[in-house]
Amino acid sequence: MFNKLNEECGVFGVYNNDDHDVAGLSYYALYALQHRGQESCGIAINRDGIIRGHKNLGLVNEVFDQKTLKSLGQGKMAIGHCRYATCGQGMISNAQPLMINHLKGSMAIAHNGNLTNTGELRRELELGGAIFQGTSDTEVIAYILTKQRLSSNSIEEAISKTMNIIKGAYCLLVMSPKKLIAARDPYGIRPLSIGKLGDSYMIASETCALESNGATFVRDVLPGEIVVIDETGLKSITTHVSNKCHLCVFEFVYFARPDSVIEGSCVQTARQRAGTYLALEHPVQADVVIGVPDSGLDAALGFSKQSGIPYGVGLLKNKYVGRTFIQPDQIQREKAVRIKLNPIASALKDKRVVLIDDSIVRGTTSKRIVQLIRDAGAKEVHMRISAPPFKYPCYFGTDVDTQENLIAWHMSIEEIAKEIGVDSLGYLSVQDVKKIATNSACDYCVGCFTGEYPMEVPKGSQKHICEIPLGAEKTAEYEYDMEVEDNEEF
Amino acid sequence: MFNKLNEECGVFGVYNNDDHDVAGLSYYALYALQHRGQESCGIAINRDGIIRGHKNLGLVNEVFDQKTLKSLGQGKMAIGHCRYATCGQGMISNAQPLMINHLKGSMAIAHNGNLTNTGELRRELELGGAIFQGTSDTEVIAYILTKQRLSSNSIEEAISKTMNIIKGAYCLLVMSPKKLIAARDPYGIRPLSIGKLGDSYMIASETCALESNGATFVRDVLPGEIVVIDETGLKSITTHVSNKCHLCVFEFVYFARPDSVIEGSCVQTARQRAGTYLALEHPVQADVVIGVPDSGLDAALGFSKQSGIPYGVGLLKNKYVGRTFIQPDQIQREKAVRIKLNPIASALKDKRVVLIDDSIVRGTTSKRIVQLIRDAGAKEVHMRISAPPFKYPCYFGTDVDTQENLIAWHMSIEEIAKEIGVDSLGYLSVQDVKKIATNSACDYCVGCFTGEYPMEVPKGSQKHICEIPLGAEKTAEYEYDMEVEDNEEF
Amino acid sequence: MFNKLNEECGVFGVYNNDDHDVAGLSYYALYALQHRGQESCGIAINRDGIIRGHKNLGLVNEVFDQKTLKSLGQGKMAIGHCRYATCGQGMISNAQPLMINHLKGSMAIAHNGNLTNTGELRRELELGGAIFQGTSDTEVIAYILTKQRLSSNSIEEAISKTMNIIKGAYCLLVMSPKKLIAARDPYGIRPLSIGKLGDSYMIASETCALESNGATFVRDVLPGEIVVIDETGLKSITTHVSNKCHLCVFEFVYFARPDSVIEGSCVQTARQRAGTYLALEHPVQADVVIGVPDSGLDAALGFSKQSGIPYGVGLLKNKYVGRTFIQPDQIQREKAVRIKLNPIASALKDKRVVLIDDSIVRGTTSKRIVQLIRDAGAKEVHMRISAPPFKYPCYFGTDVDTQENLIAWHMSIEEIAKEIGVDSLGYLSVQDVKKIATNSACDYCVGCFTGEYPMEVPKGSQKHICEIPLGAEKTAEYEYDMEVEDNEEF
Amino acid sequence: MFNKLNEECGVFGVYNNDDHDVAGLSYYALYALQHRGQESCGIAINRDGIIRGHKNLGLVNEVFDQKTLKSLGQGKMAIGHCRYATCGQGMISNAQPLMINHLKGSMAIAHNGNLTNTGELRRELELGGAIFQGTSDTEVIAYILTKQRLSSNSIEEAISKTMNIIKGAYCLLVMSPKKLIAARDPYGIRPLSIGKLGDSYMIASETCALESNGATFVRDVLPGEIVVIDETGLKSITTHVSNKCHLCVFEFVYFARPDSVIEGSCVQTARQRAGTYLALEHPVQADVVIGVPDSGLDAALGFSKQSGIPYGVGLLKNKYVGRTFIQPDQIQREKAVRIKLNPIASALKDKRVVLIDDSIVRGTTSKRIVQLIRDAGAKEVHMRISAPPFKYPCYFGTDVDTQENLIAWHMSIEEIAKEIGVDSLGYLSVQDVKKIATNSACDYCVGCFTGEYPMEVPKGSQKHICEIPLGAEKTAEYEYDMEVEDNEEF
Repeated sequence: MFNKLNEECGVFGVYNNDDHDVAGLSYYALYALQHRGQESCGIAINRDGIIRGHKNLGLVNEVFDQKTLKSLGQGKMAIGHCRYATCGQGMISNAQPLMINHLKGSMAIAHNGNLTNTGELRRELELGGAIFQGTSDTEVIAYILTKQRLSSNSIEEAISKTMNIIKGAYCLLVMSPKKLIAARDPYGIRPLSIGKLGDSYMIASETCALESNGATFVRDVLPGEIVVIDETGLKSITTHVSNKCHLCVFEFVYFARPDSVIEGSCVQTARQRAGTYLALEHPVQADVVIGVPDSGLDAALGFSKQSGIPYGVGLLKNKYVGRTFIQPDQIQREKAVRIKLNPIASALKDKRVVLIDDSIVRGTTSKRIVQLIRDAGAKEVHMRISAPPFKYPCYFGTDVDTQENLIAWHMSIEEIAKEIGVDSLGYLSVQDVKKIATNSACDYCVGCFTGEYPMEVPKGSQKHICEIPLGAEKTAEYEYDMEVEDNEEF
Repeated sequence: MFNKLNEECGVFGVYNNDDHDVAGLSYYALYALQHRGQESCGIAINRDGIIRGHKNLGLVNEVFDQKTLKSLGQGKMAIGHCRYATCGQGMISNAQPLMINHLKGSMAIAHNGNLTNTGELRRELELGGAIFQGTSDTEVIAYILTKQRLSSNSIEEAISKTMNIIKGAYCLLVMSPKKLIAARDPYGIRPLSIGKLGDSYMIASETCALESNGATFVRDVLPGEIVVIDETGLKSITTHVSNKCHLCVFEFVYFARPDSVIEGSCVQTARQRAGTYLALEHPVQADVVIGVPDSGLDAALGFSKQSGIPYGVGLLKNKYVGRTFIQPDQIQREKAVRIKLNPIASALKDKRVVLIDDSIVRGTTSKRIVQLIRDAGAKEVHMRISAPPFKYPCYFGTDVDTQENLIAWHMSIEEIAKEIGVDSLGYLSVQDVKKIATNSACDYCVGCFTGEYPMEVPKGSQKHICEIPLGAEKTAEYEYDMEVEDNEEF
Repeated sequence: MFNKLNEECGVFGVYNNDDHDVAGLSYYALYALQHRGQESCGIAINRDGIIRGHKNLGLVNEVFDQKTLKSLGQGKMAIGHCRYATCGQGMISNAQPLMINHLKGSMAIAHNGNLTNTGELRRELELGGAIFQGTSDTEVIAYILTKQRLSSNSIEEAISKTMNIIKGAYCLLVMSPKKLIAARDPYGIRPLSIGKLGDSYMIASETCALESNGATFVRDVLPGEIVVIDETGLKSITTHVSNKCHLCVFEFVYFARPDSVIEGSCVQTARQRAGTYLALEHPVQADVVIGVPDSGLDAALGFSKQSGIPYGVGLLKNKYVGRTFIQPDQIQREKAVRIKLNPIASALKDKRVVLIDDSIVRGTTSKRIVQLIRDAGAKEVHMRISAPPFKYPCYFGTDVDTQENLIAWHMSIEEIAKEIGVDSLGYLSVQDVKKIATNSACDYCVGCFTGEYPMEVPKGSQKHICEIPLGAEKTAEYEYDMEVEDNEEF
Repeated sequence: MFNKLNEECGVFGVYNNDDHDVAGLSYYALYALQHRGQESCGIAINRDGIIRGHKNLGLVNEVFDQKTLKSLGQGKMAIGHCRYATCGQGMISNAQPLMINHLKGSMAIAHNGNLTNTGELRRELELGGAIFQGTSDTEVIAYILTKQRLSSNSIEEAISKTMNIIKGAYCLLVMSPKKLIAARDPYGIRPLSIGKLGDSYMIASETCALESNGATFVRDVLPGEIVVIDETGLKSITTHVSNKCHLCVFEFVYFARPDSVIEGSCVQTARQRAGTYLALEHPVQADVVIGVPDSGLDAALGFSKQSGIPYGVGLLKNKYVGRTFIQPDQIQREKAVRIKLNPIASALKDKRVVLIDDSIVRGTTSKRIVQLIRDAGAKEVHMRISAPPFKYPCYFGTDVDTQENLIAWHMSIEEIAKEIGVDSLGYLSVQDVKKIATNSACDYCVGCFTGEYPMEVPKGSQKHICEIPLGAEKTAEYEYDMEVEDNEEF
C-alpha cells in the first residue's frame, strides 16, 4: 500500500574460531536484516567442508523454527541471506544462498545488489550451453565464478577474475569448503561490514546484524575489496579497490536500520540531519511537525529541532498489520488506510501541520495520508520529503517502479503538491542529501534523483532489467505456492 | 521478556442497519484492538437469528483468512473478541465469543474484565449441577444470564438481574437472535464506546476500533448502563448507572492505544502529560530524554517538553520479533536482548540519559535495558516511570504477577534504583497519575498502586483468583496445540 | 462419494498398572479404531488425578504428532475417542473426550452411540438452567452424570443412576480422578471389549485396538454392565445387566474391522458367511465373483466358495484418494469415479459378473460402479448385497440418510435393479443376516431393515434426531475451520 | 518398515486439442501414478508458449490444493511427475518437472529412469563449466539437451542427438513452447504408453493414468522411439528404435498398478500367473493360501487356483497408517508391526498356511510377519515369493539397497528359510518369472536376479551410483524441510 522502494537483499556470514552456534548467529543476524528483504531467506552451514542449508519463501520466523535450525547442526562457517525480489516474482528458485555441487568443490553464494550486464552475460553463457533454473543475477555469478575457478589456483583468484567480468552493484559472500570470502563492488554501492566476536569473524550488510550478535564492529569492507577468511585468519585482496565509494544515498534515507552505522555515519543521525537540512531549505510557519511512521520519524525530529516547531506524534501505525492482512475490497479501500495508519486528532486538530516523509513514489499513498490528516482537523498540511524527487530508475538492486509510474517524472513540484492536496511541498536538494551522513570520505550514488550514475547503465527502461533476457521463444517461470495473497509489509 | 502487565480483552459489536459486511467490520475492529489481547480471538455473526462463529488461538491474522471470513457470510449483527488470558492458559475452550444453544434461544457473549465473585458463583452453580468446560468468568456469566432469562421477559431484563449478582469489572456484549446488548459494570473500570457508521451502530472497547471502520464516535457507555440495540433503534437502561466512573488508570498509562479517546481524553495526550508531571516531580540535569519503545515514547516526549532536555531515540525495537521468535539459550540470553531492542550509540554516547518507561514489574527487564544503555556509552542513566510503583494485585482483568514477584512490594525506590543500576529513579505520584487525563468528571481505580479498590475484593492473594475454584479433587485442563513455543509478544 | 453408512464413534481406555506410555497406547488404539470415525479425535490423560487432553478435527495422524503426544506426558489412565458426526457438523465443540471441571472433581467422558431421549432430556436440563456449547449427546450425559454425582456416594453410583435416565445406545468411558469406568447400554447395541496387557486393563470398541497394542482379549462388557477399574482391580456392577444382547448387525456387515472379534464371532468370518448365505439364497450362473473394495471383498469370497464361481479382483481402489482429494467438476464427475475405483478389464471382459457389495443407500454409487463394469466389457452384471434392503432410520448412532433418500424405501427390488442397471439383484434376507455371526447367544438389532427396534424410538423422521432440539428461537452453531473441502473418506 | 523396492518415478503428459483442463488431467493422472513415487511431485503447464509450474515435496494431495491447481490456469500442454528418490534425499531441487529458461526457448523436462553414465557425463559437463544445483540425472540430461539444441534445427533433433550420448533407462517427457515430446530408451526398460481423449493426446508411465482420465489406450511408445506431438498431430521418429524390449520384469511383479496394461499384458493377470507358476514349482500341502497385502494378494489368488488350496485373508492392513505415523520406540517396535498389519486369527488358527509375497529384501520384515502368523495359531508357514531371489543391484531407476543388505546375496534359500522362521520357502525361477506376462514379443531385464544386464553397467557397487560424483572437495547438499519424521509409506 505504501509504495516504498525496497532494498533487494541482506547478507550475513560467520567464520567460527570459537564454539559459536553458527546457525543461531545467522538466524539472529537475519532477524536484524529482515527489513532488507522479506520475501525469502535462507542459511547455509559448512561443517567439515560439507555444506547444508535451508531456505524458503517467507519471513525468518516463518522459514525457520527450532527444529529446522537444529537440523542444520554445528558448523565452522555459515552464510545467510534475506531477499526482496526486484521484480516481485515469488520464486523459491531465486531464494538464496545458492548452493553449487561441483567436481572442484561445492560452494554457497549469497548476493546483495544488481548487475548491470546480466543480460549480456547470461546470453553469452546460454549460447555456451549454460541452463538457468531461476532468474536471479546470482545464478549468472555462480556460472562465471565456476568457470573462472576451473582455470584458477584458488577461489579468491576466481572471484577476482569474476570481478573483471561482472558490472554493477554487488556485495558477495562465497562460502567454499575451507574459506569464507566477501567481495564488494568497486563503487561500494551497497554497504558491507566486518565484525568480530571472540576470535570469530562476521560479515554483514549492516552493523545492526553484528550488534544483535554481540559482535564488535571492525571496519567496512572497502569498495572493490576481497576479504578472505580461513584458518590462517583474515586476508585482504585490494586489486580492485577504488579510491572512492559511491554508496547508495537511499541506504541512509530509508533502507538501512536507524541503529546501523555505514561508512562511519550513524543512519539515525543522518536521517535527523536530513530533517535539519529540510527545515533550512523549506522553512514554514506551523504548529507541529509529524513524521510518517516509521521511516519519517527521525527526519521529523531533525526538522523540529532546527525549526523550533514542536515535534508531535500525529499518526499511529498498527503494528499487527502484516503479510496476511486481508485487504478491504474496492469500496472500503479509501477508508481502510485507517486500519494501517490512524491519525491522532488531539495532535492535529486546528493545527498547521508539517508532515515529513522520505519519499513520494506514485503519490497515491501520500494523497491518502494527507486526507487523513485533514479529516482529523488539521488547518494546513505542509509536506517535506527528506530526499530529492525520485525521477530515474535504479540499476543497483532496489525495487523501483517503472519511470512512467513515478509522479515526479511527470509532474512539477507544484503539480505534485496539488495532486496530493498539500498547502506546500518541499524536497531535500540533491546537494544537501549528500551531506546528511557526516562522513566526508564517502561519495554517493544519486542516480535515481539525477539520472547520472557512477558507472555505465543499460540502455532502455528499468522495467527491462527486471525481465529475464528473452530469446526467440517465451520464458518459463515457476510460481511456487505463496500462502498469502498480499505480501505487502506495511 | 518485557514483563508488561497485559489487558485481558477487547470487545466489538455491530448492529447493521445499512448493508455493511459485519464480518469484515469485526475483523478490522479486532485488528485495531489486537493490543488488548493476542492469545485468541473470534467473531460470531447473527443472520436471521442464526448465530455462526469462528474462533481460535492466535492473532487475528492467524485465526482469520479470506476463506474463513467469507464463510461467516452476511449478517444483521456481529460481535468479536480478542483475549489475553489472565492466567496464561492457552485454552481454546476459553476463547470467545462464547456461544450458547438454548431452548429459549441462542446467544453469543463477549466479555472484557474480571469478576471478583467468580469463585463463589461458580461453586454455587456447580453444586446446582452446572458443568464447566473452561475456566473463564464468561461461562459463569452465561449460566447466570441463562438462568435469569428463564424467569425474565426479555434478555435485557435478564442482563439487568445478572448485574445484581455478578461483581467486579466487566464490559459485556450479548448478541441474542434479535438484539445487540452492551453492559458496563457500575464502576466503569474498563472502557466501552458507542459509534455510528451510516445508520448502523458499533460498540467497542476503544474508539480506535470505531475509527478503523470509519465510524463516528457517539459517546461512552455509562458505568452501569445497559445499551440495547434492535430494530427499534438504540435504547438505554440506566437502572444500575452509578454517578461516578472508576476507570482503570492503567488504560491511560499503558493498555489503550494512543489514538483512542477514553472518557473524553486522548490517550496519547494523557501519556505526554504523564511525562510532563514526571518532569515536574523528578527533575534532573541531563542531555537527552529517551523512551522505552513503544509505550514509553509519549511520556518521554512530555518529559522533554517540560524539562527542555532534548528528546532522542536511543533504543530501536526490532519489529519482526514476534510470537514465533526462537529464544536464545541460557548462555546467550544476556546478549540477546539486543535482538529485540538495540541501543543507538550515537544518541547515547557520553550523554546523561533520562530513560522513561511506564512501569517496572519484576525489574529484570529494566536492568537489562539500563545495561544496554550504559554499554552504548551513556555517562548517567536516570530512570523515570510514568506511573506509581506497582505494589498490589489487580482484581479487574489484567495480567498481574503474584505480589511476591513485584519488585516494588519488596524494595524501596532507592533499593530498586540500585538493583536495576540507575543513577536516579523517580515514579509518578498517585496524586499526579490521576491528573494525566484531562477529563475531571472521571475518577480512577488506582488499587494496584495503593491497595485501595473502588469495591470489595476477594481475600487472599491475586494468584488465587487466576485459578479455577477447586473442590475435593483435582482440576482438569485441556491443553490445545499451540504452534509456537514462545507466546511472548514483544 | 460412496454413500456408505458411517459408524459414529470409537472409544478406548487404559488403566495402567505397569509402566506403559498411556498416551502412546491410546494413539495406536485410535489408529486401529480410525474406521469408526474420521472427523475428530482426542485423548485425555489422567496423571495423579489431573486430567489433560488434546483433541481436534482431523484424522489421528493429523491431530497428533510426536510433540503433542509427548506433551500429554505420562499417566495412570487415559481415554481416547474418534468420531464421525451423525449430522455432519464439523464442530470442534463436539470433539471428545469431553472434559468437565467440577467442585466435586473433574472427569473426562468418551461416548459411542446415540441416545433416543436426548431431546426430552436436553429440554428439561435447559429449562433447569443448563447451557450447551455443542450439540452432542455427550454434553447431555455429562450434565446428568454431574447432577447424579452430587447426590451419590461414588462416580459408579452416579453412572448407575444415569443409566436409569438415558435411553438408547451407548458405550461410555468415564475417567474420574481415581477410576476408569466403562458402561454399555442394556441392549448392547454397540460393541465394547476388555483386554489386558501385563497387569494393565484396556477397554475398546473393538478387539483390533487391543491387539494393536499387544493386549490379550479378556471378555466383552456385558449389555448393561458397569465395569469399574481402580487401584483395587476390576469390579463389575451388573444391576442393569439384561439377559440378551441386541447388537447392531451392521457391525458385522460393515462397521467393524474384519480382524475384530465381537461377541465371540470374527467379523471377517461373518462377512464370508454373509456371502455364503447370499449364494444360497440368490444363486446365479456366472463366470466371476468380484467385491466392491474394501468392504465387499470378504462376502465375495464367501459367495465364490459356496457357488464355485471363481473369485476375481475386478475393481482397483486408489489408496491415495483421501480427505483432501479435489473433486472433479460437474462435467467430469461421471468419468471421475475411475480415479477412485478403476475396473480391471482383463478380469471382466466378456464375463458374467457377480458383483458383491454390503449395501445400497441412494443407488447412485452402485449405478456408477455397474456402468464401469459394463464399460470394461462385462456381459452380465448380477448384484448381490450382503445385507437386507435398508429402509428405516437408525436411532442408535450411525450416519443414516433421511428415509426419503433411501432407494429401497421407494422402490421394489426389481425397480432398483433396473435403476442401477443390473441383470439381477439379490439382497440377503433378514432371517439370514442374523445367522452370519456364529455366536447364537447374541440377538441383533435389525431395525434399519424391518422398522422394528429393540426399544422405543422417537416419533417422527430420523432427520429430526440429528438436529438440536429447537426452542422458540433459532440455533447457534460454531463452524470451525476445516482445512479440507471434501471430508469424504473413500 | 516393509523394505520394499521402490520405483523411481511416474511421468504424464497431455497435448490438448479440445478444451480440457490440462492441470486437472495431470492432477488426476498423478493420483493414478502415485504408487510410482511418493516423495515429491509437480506439474508444469504450457500456455501460449509460457511455461508455469508448481512442485514440492509431498504426496499429490499435499502438494496440490484447489487454489494451486487453479493458479496454474489453462494451457495447451502439461507434463507431470511424481518421484521417489533413489538415494533417499528429500531434496526439492530434485523435484520435477525441471524447468529451463533459455535464450533458445524454455522447456520443462520430466524423467523416469536412471542413467548409467551420469558420473562420466556430469564430470565432463562440470569441467566445461556447468554447475549443478541438485543431484538428479535430469539436470544432466537438461544440460546435454540444451547443448544439442544449440546446434540442432529442432528440439526433436536435439533429443535424438542426446539419446546418442545418454545411456541407461529413461522415459523422458519434454515440453517445449510448441511441442510435447516423449522418448523411451532403446531397451524399453520402463513402460510408457500413449492414450487419446477426444482429439487430445496423453502420454503416461502406466495405462491406469490414461484410464483415470477416461482416455483410450492407443499403443505403447516403442523402445528407442521419439514421439513428437504438435499442432500437426503425432509424429514418430524411429531412428533409435531397437527390435526388442527389455522391460524391467519387476514392473509386472510389483511396481505397476494391477489395473495397468504393459506391452499388451495386464499386470494383475501377470501377478496371478506368477502365483500359478509358483504353485507348479513349489507345491505344498496346506489349508489356506494368504498374501501379504497389498502386493502379494494377486499371486496368492493364482497360487490358490492352481493348487486348489483355499484362498484366505489372513492379514489386515491398516489403511490409515501413512507418512506421518509416529513409530513406536525401540521397546515396543516388535509388537507394533501389528498396528500396520494385524493377523486374522480365525483364518489362520491351527492351519497350515502358504504365505505369498513378491520379494524378500533384508528379511527382517518377512521374519516379523511370519511371527505374527505363528502367534495367531498357524501350525505351519510355507512362504512363496512370486519372483526370484533378489541378489544384484539395479542400475535402472529403482530404490535398491546395497548388495550387502540383500539377504539372498549372503544366504542360501535354506538359510533364509531358517532365518525368517518358515517351514519351507520357495522362489519363482528366473525362467518362469519371464513367462508371467502373456506377451511373447517382449523380453525382460532380470539383472537384479541374475547380475546379467541388457546393457553395460557401471563398475563397482550400486551404492556408488546413488552418490553425486565427487571431486577433490566435499559435496554440498540442501536439505529442505520435511514436515514428517517418517516418510515410509506402508
